Amino acid sequence: MTGICGHSLDEYLAMVERFHGNRAPGILIGGFMVDLATRNLPPGEFHDAICETAVCLPDAVQLLTPCTTGNGWLKVLEFGRFALTMYEKSGGEGVRVHLDAGKLERWPAIKAWFFKLTPKKEQDLQAILDQIGKAGHAILAMEKVRVDPKSLQRPKLGAIAVCPACGEAYPARDGDRCRACLGETPYLPA
Amino acid sequence: MTGICGHSLDEYLAMVERFHGNRAPGILIGGFMVDLATRNLPPGEFHDAICETAVCLPDAVQLLTPCTTGNGWLKVLEFGRFALTMYEKSGGEGVRVHLDAGKLERWPAIKAWFFKLTPKKEQDLQAILDQIGKAGHAILAMEKVRVDPKSLQRPKLGAIAVCPACGEAYPARDGDRCRACLGETPYLPA
Repeated sequence: MTGICGHSLDEYLAMVERFHGNRAPGILIGGFMVDLATRNLPPGEFHDAICETAVCLPDAVQLLTPCTTGNGWLKVLEFGRFALTMYEKSGGEGVRVHLDAGKLERWPAIKAWFFKLTPKKEQDLQAILDQIGKAGHAILAMEKVRVDPKSLQRPKLGAIAVCPACGEAYPARDGDRCRACLGETPYLPA
Repeated sequence: MTGICGHSLDEYLAMVERFHGNRAPGILIGGFMVDLATRNLPPGEFHDAICETAVCLPDAVQLLTPCTTGNGWLKVLEFGRFALTMYEKSGGEGVRVHLDAGKLERWPAIKAWFFKLTPKKEQDLQAILDQIGKAGHAILAMEKVRVDPKSLQRPKLGAIAVCPACGEAYPARDGDRCRACLGETPYLPA
């Protein structure tokens, strides 16, 4: 493989290490997935992204596309499928790429990592990364999809109220108190 | 204010523009929030992050801390409160910072933006950013919190199965098919 969205493998892995904290196999594969998707989309269009797992893939998308968690162009669906989709925002036409487990027979280190056949301590990270670098697009599958953009729209924030329980601003649509005060708080009582 | 986590305001705004796509007021405030939180945490500890809104704040955290969506150290809770927390991963001790709406009287441009008192088209972005840069920590409030780390743990992926409907790998714990094939798919029929 020649590269990932215009970056050499080493450049991309350095970007991954800075942003994600370590050279995770899943983000290297994710880089090739974004690369394959963007090569198969009409140039000049504006694309949103879906990751079908919260693990690793969102960081590949955030490094290589304009889509981030905070700007709303990246959606994470926790299906636990190693797949991502880039799609045209309004019409929903797009391309979905997933890791094709059926293509892993030729790549035993990737297969053992993906199916967790080897305990993490015994894995040879460099061997896994080397196989992923050699495999590139060869372990991926791609299909055209049409996304239902309505199913992914973040509701408009709408009117803002002040929560009578915590005194903080919150979206009035959530009810007579904010969701944290309605019972979802992750904070323990002082 | 002198800066945001060691960056000048201009440096930080350039980072924001590259990553997030535009100089959003919410991410500039988010930068000061992360700055205030990290100044009040013991150095050398390793901290996870919570954002209590999906809008803007996650990108401030991803730019200024090691926590990202894909590495699991950043959790987004959709409470719609403009607040973030940095906490020690195992014990849950941490610091929560929120935008204190009661402190906005002195900053009319920020107030009009935050409460959406002015239609977006009529807002003066530079005036809002200027006021935020001058206000810095003065519009924020901070409290010590204890997070219940269990409430935020991503369940382990566990055993991997192949979905009989789509043929893709998925977490066996999700049932006899993957969640997409169980009805959550965002894709329209071909």
